[in-house]
Amino acid sequence: MSKPGDIKEIVEGISPVDQEWISKAQARTAQLLMPTRALGRLHEISERLCGIQKTLKPSIDKKGILIMAGDHGIVAEGVSAYPQEITGGMVQAFLAGGAGISAISSHVGAEVWVVDMGIIPEINPADMPNGERLRIKKIAAGTANFLKGPAMTKEQAEEALLTGFAQASELFENGIEILGTGDMGIGNTTPSAAIGAVVTGKSLEDMVGRGTGVDDDGLKQKIETIGKAIAVNQPDATDGLDVLAKVGGFEIGGIAGSILAAAYYGKPVVIDGFISTAGALIACTLCPTVKEYCFSGHCSEEQGHKLMLDHLGLKPILNLGMRLGEGTGGAMAMSVIEGAAKMFKEVLTFEEAGIPGKE
Amino acid sequence: MSKPGDIKEIVEGISPVDQEWISKAQARTAQLLMPTRALGRLHEISERLCGIQKTLKPSIDKKGILIMAGDHGIVAEGVSAYPQEITGGMVQAFLAGGAGISAISSHVGAEVWVVDMGIIPEINPADMPNGERLRIKKIAAGTANFLKGPAMTKEQAEEALLTGFAQASELFENGIEILGTGDMGIGNTTPSAAIGAVVTGKSLEDMVGRGTGVDDDGLKQKIETIGKAIAVNQPDATDGLDVLAKVGGFEIGGIAGSILAAAYYGKPVVIDGFISTAGALIACTLCPTVKEYCFSGHCSEEQGHKLMLDHLGLKPILNLGMRLGEGTGGAMAMSVIEGAAKMFKEVLTFEEAGIPGKE
Repeated sequence: MSKPGDIKEIVEGISPVDQEWISKAQARTAQLLMPTRALGRLHEISERLCGIQKTLKPSIDKKGILIMAGDHGIVAEGVSAYPQEITGGMVQAFLAGGAGISAISSHVGAEVWVVDMGIIPEINPADMPNGERLRIKKIAAGTANFLKGPAMTKEQAEEALLTGFAQASELFENGIEILGTGDMGIGNTTPSAAIGAVVTGKSLEDMVGRGTGVDDDGLKQKIETIGKAIAVNQPDATDGLDVLAKVGGFEIGGIAGSILAAAYYGKPVVIDGFISTAGALIACTLCPTVKEYCFSGHCSEEQGHKLMLDHLGLKPILNLGMRLGEGTGGAMAMSVIEGAAKMFKEVLTFEEAGIPGKE
Repeated sequence: MSKPGDIKEIVEGISPVDQEWISKAQARTAQLLMPTRALGRLHEISERLCGIQKTLKPSIDKKGILIMAGDHGIVAEGVSAYPQEITGGMVQAFLAGGAGISAISSHVGAEVWVVDMGIIPEINPADMPNGERLRIKKIAAGTANFLKGPAMTKEQAEEALLTGFAQASELFENGIEILGTGDMGIGNTTPSAAIGAVVTGKSLEDMVGRGTGVDDDGLKQKIETIGKAIAVNQPDATDGLDVLAKVGGFEIGGIAGSILAAAYYGKPVVIDGFISTAGALIACTLCPTVKEYCFSGHCSEEQGHKLMLDHLGLKPILNLGMRLGEGTGGAMAMSVIEGAAKMFKEVLTFEEAGIPGKE
């Protein structure tokens, strides 16, 4: 496909999912060797894959998880229970193996790539195990503290989106059939909650949660901080780029860009948890058609996540009280999505099996 | 292990899950390279596997699905939307491949065995593809119509339990590390709802659902039929064998026996949907400790299923609107259980990864 030069060209290049292929898939589902639609959501999932891939033989053999990492100036306000150094440490763990996403992606047969969208430490892929899976695309060494002005400039926000788009595009061009989004960034439930509140219009009390585990005082402070930041920055809820620039993060912009790439290339994308869904909100504000390509991997324990998903009209596949990020919930859900695809391809119809159907 | 001769010896041979190993596993979870218990239910699942297997290296590589098949005299009362011939036809499809369970078990790496616990047609494994995976253990050619008296004799009920126990025992002795229950039997949501109502004490209006798809009149008739059958038979809710004999089914007895075998051999067992959970209710009435070995694979669309699970104190892993049976929901959930086991084994602690923890 031709490479789009800017966000406008990306949005113009995104088409709705093919309803004819979905109808063809539904017609086959109705004939399958089981009571009508007896596998519930596995049918919906497999039919949407058929629509996205324009086929009755959906395949998601080649799975990729793209983890976007970034640091956050707002951490200076004490919004996280963990020190900021962890962001860089975890990037190394993703490459070395031994993190949550390492185990779950290996279980489901997905490969993991990591993009430094703007973490504070300088890291060198050549010094790392599996360094070829790390891309250094730093927009800056962490965002600015958005309590005192925008987290980034408009130019940086656009750069974050285009970088995420380019990184995911490379995976699709190399044969990845389904993308899982992932994030790492100490403090990033704070910009995500800010984006969630601005885009959905829900209250901060409903949207803001404990992240990695702040206590009651910490939660109160987090809500106050986000409230002040929104008042200071006045983000325009209808303009994803403005919201991203004012109260977002580099990795959230990268995720939004990678989701836009999935829709642009006609590939399914599994949205992980709270931070990834904040990225999806940005992407869908820029182009609502994008959500036709999105599967919600799971519903996070972070309380605002369900409100974000409701706003997008996405129903999570798993609901296991997870709240880690890294792409773990989306990766785990890939196993269900792949099960649905195989079910669709491998189950016979009553006629093919030579068994009489419903009376 | 020594072979128990009767149900009393089976029950006496069942021990609670080892709490010390669960505590050891919880201690490791607390150190893992992530915020405290950030993977939610994956932690509970992995820790219980550690307790069941008495290890910090839980493994469920070798997975088996044991499908129990039986026919039901109550079908004469018009309780099902499908003809009774389908039971035998589906048994052949399970062996030949092409059924729902064939695709999903293959996806998760589970092997499928089928036991003829009492279907009407005479079938010969030698005539079938993969016939070595079919065992003919017919108690009788279908149960009696329990609207007119007990579905089976007490001796047949005991034989069904012991047969299920023996079939599952053979799998465990051959190295199966986790068992999934499965069922096939046109009409079998009717005995399952009867068992559910008797054991949980819930109303038939709450417990009885549409099964493979009866309409409003069919549902009304199904509720009336079950109500009359319970009045005629007066099953003793505290005696699983009595409930099974009066309003049960041969495959439900087989499932209950296979669940008892899992607890007896100290193996995890994944309970599928409505019919399998009726089997679990019978097993847990005989020996409440059994439920410590049970994972609920999913919550079925069949409305009474949640009430059964609440009664057992089991929380389903998946909630995807499935209502097929065959073991499909349990098989799909095995992927999550295996993901949890691998996560527990492969994720490093903060110390092992050389990354500082929480402030």
